[in-house]
Amino acid sequence: MYPTQNRRVILKSRPLGIPEAEHFELVSAAVPALRAGELLVRNDFLSIDPAMRGWVNAAANYANPVAIGEVMRAFTAGVVIASRHPRYAEGDRVMGLLGWQEYAITDGSAVRRKVTEADLPLSLALGILGLNGVTAYLAFTEIGEPRPGDTVVVSTAAGAVGSAVGQIARIAGCRTVGITGGPQKVRCCLDEFGFDTAIDYKSADFEQVLAAACPQGVNIYFDNTAGAVSDAVLPHIARGARIIVCGTASVASWDPPPVGPRVERHLLVKAARMQGFLGLDYEHRLDEVVARLAAWVRAGQLRYREEILDGIEQAPASIAGLYRGENTGKRLIRMRHADSTC
Amino acid sequence: MYPTQNRRVILKSRPLGIPEAEHFELVSAAVPALRAGELLVRNDFLSIDPAMRGWVNAAANYANPVAIGEVMRAFTAGVVIASRHPRYAEGDRVMGLLGWQEYAITDGSAVRRKVTEADLPLSLALGILGLNGVTAYLAFTEIGEPRPGDTVVVSTAAGAVGSAVGQIARIAGCRTVGITGGPQKVRCCLDEFGFDTAIDYKSADFEQVLAAACPQGVNIYFDNTAGAVSDAVLPHIARGARIIVCGTASVASWDPPPVGPRVERHLLVKAARMQGFLGLDYEHRLDEVVARLAAWVRAGQLRYREEILDGIEQAPASIAGLYRGENTGKRLIRMRHADSTC
Repeated sequence: MYPTQNRRVILKSRPLGIPEAEHFELVSAAVPALRAGELLVRNDFLSIDPAMRGWVNAAANYANPVAIGEVMRAFTAGVVIASRHPRYAEGDRVMGLLGWQEYAITDGSAVRRKVTEADLPLSLALGILGLNGVTAYLAFTEIGEPRPGDTVVVSTAAGAVGSAVGQIARIAGCRTVGITGGPQKVRCCLDEFGFDTAIDYKSADFEQVLAAACPQGVNIYFDNTAGAVSDAVLPHIARGARIIVCGTASVASWDPPPVGPRVERHLLVKAARMQGFLGLDYEHRLDEVVARLAAWVRAGQLRYREEILDGIEQAPASIAGLYRGENTGKRLIRMRHADSTC
Repeated sequence: MYPTQNRRVILKSRPLGIPEAEHFELVSAAVPALRAGELLVRNDFLSIDPAMRGWVNAAANYANPVAIGEVMRAFTAGVVIASRHPRYAEGDRVMGLLGWQEYAITDGSAVRRKVTEADLPLSLALGILGLNGVTAYLAFTEIGEPRPGDTVVVSTAAGAVGSAVGQIARIAGCRTVGITGGPQKVRCCLDEFGFDTAIDYKSADFEQVLAAACPQGVNIYFDNTAGAVSDAVLPHIARGARIIVCGTASVASWDPPPVGPRVERHLLVKAARMQGFLGLDYEHRLDEVVARLAAWVRAGQLRYREEILDGIEQAPASIAGLYRGENTGKRLIRMRHADSTC
C-alpha cells in the first residue's frame, strides 16, 4: 500500500560539536507519487553513526554539511515497496543514504547496494555488513597492512568498528589489544570479541598496563578516538608502525582544534605512518568486502552486537549517547511501520 | 706518511636538547698501527647535520646515543691513506660514519660508499650527493609519491635538504612553494633554487600568503621543522595529501614533548598520510640515487650551497648554529692537514 504521510527528522539548528536532541525536529510530510525512474523505499532500520557529527557541523569535512531544514543524512536499510526504476523491483532489500525518515524516494543514486544476504538479518547491512564492518576491514587491511604476529592496538574496542577490527586482526594472525572504557566492556572484548588483551582506559594504571601488553611495541594502532588514549599509545609504536586514523570520538569539538603532544618525533624516529581513512575512497569494493564479512559471520568467526532503539522518536537524542560511550555495539533505530513485518 | 697523532672531538656531557660547544671537547690520541682487514682514512670534510642532536640525546631514537667520552658520530668524506683491507686501496675516496676526527681506522663497516664521481668536489659526498641529497630524493619520491602538477610545500626551503627537495620536485613537474626565514633566504629560494614561490615565515602575513600560494591545497608537505610552520600548513592539505616528516628543526627539546594542535582531524577528513622518513631503511639504494643526483648536478638542474668552516676547532659550536638558522646550504668543516692537498 502506497503511503501518504512520511515522518522524518530534519536538522533544525547547527550544533557546535556534538549534535543533541534539540538540534533536530520530527516533522511530517506528504509522500509524492513516483515519477519514471524512481523507487520508494520503506526504511526498516536507521543507522546512528559517530560520523554524523561531522555531517552536521560547518567545519571542513569530507562531505558538505546537511542543510538546516533538510532530512538528516543517514544510512538506512529497507525494502522497495514501489518502483518505476528498471533495476529495482518491489520486495528488493536495499541499503543506502536514505535519511532519517520512514519512506524515501530516490532515482537510485542514494542506494548503496542491494542486500542479497537473504539468510542474514537486514539490520546487519548497517553494522557488521555495513559502514562499520566495511570500514573496519578496509581501513585495517589497506592502511594497516597487517602481518601475522603483529601487535594490533584498537581503541573503542567494544564499539561497532573496534570489535570488528579486533576479530579481523585475529583472523589475520595478529595479537590484539583492545582499549575500552569500564570493566563490563573489557569483559565483552575478551569474552565476546576474542581480544587477546583488553584494557580499561579509565583505570589508574592504564599506561603501565598498556606498556606491559605491548612488549614488542605496537605495529598497528587502529585509532577511533584521538585524545588521551592515542597519546598513551604513540610512545609505544614499533619501527615501521601504521596508525589508522578512523575516528576522533574523544574530541568534543575541532573548532578550535584541541592541543596534544606533538606526534612528529614518534613518526620520525620509528619511520612510522599515520593515515586517515575515508570509506568513500573504496566504494567500488563494497560488494567484495560484504561477501567476505558475511562468510565470516556465517562461520561464527565474526561476532557483532546491536543496540536497537525503537521508533524514529529516538533518533534525535541518539548521536550524543554514542559520544558518552553509552552503547555497546552498533546503535540502530528500528522503525514501527503499520505494514511492516519485521 | 702514516700519522702519529689524531685530533678528535669527543662528547663530554649529554645535552638536554640542542648540543652546544660546552658539551664537546677537542682531544688528541695516538694513531695505532693498522691490523689486517683495516684501513686508515684521512678525513678531509666533516659533516654538520641537524640529526646530530638526536645522536647525542638520551631520548628514544633510531640509533643508540653516542657514549660520553666517545668520538662524536658524524659523516665524513676523505681519502684512504693506508690499507690492509682487500676492497680499499690507497687513494680511494670514501664517505662514511667516521666521526669528528682527523683520521679514522675502520674494518670497512663504517664506510658508506666509495666516492667515484672523480669530476665533482669531494665535499658534495656529504651534501647534495650525501645524506642531504639522498634524503631529499628518497623521502620525496618514496613517501611523497609526486605527480606532475602537485603543489609541494617545503619547510627550511633554503637548507641543504629543503633546497634539494624543491629542485627535485620541479624536475618531477610539481609546483613548489618554499618556506624559509628572512628576505635573504626567500631570494635564495627563488633565484638560486628555482622555487615557484617562496614565503618568509617570520613575516606578519605568513598564513595569508601561504593560503594564497596554495589555492588547490597542498598535495605534498615536506616537513623539516614541525612546530608553528607545520601548524600553518596542515589546514591547507588537499585530499589524499602526503606529509613527509623528515626533521623537527623548530622543536628545541622533545623531553617532554611540546604540545600543538592535534592533527587527526586533518588526516581523517582529507584521507591524508603523515609519515616519518629514515634513510637507514634505504641504504641499498644509495649508489643508484647518488648516480641520479650526480647527473642532475652535472646538467645544472640541481644546485647546492655549501657553508664551509675551517678547522676541527669549529666543530663543537657548529650544530647549535643550524638550529638558529645561521647557515644557508650545507654546513661542513674543512680539515687542515699538513699533508692535505685539498
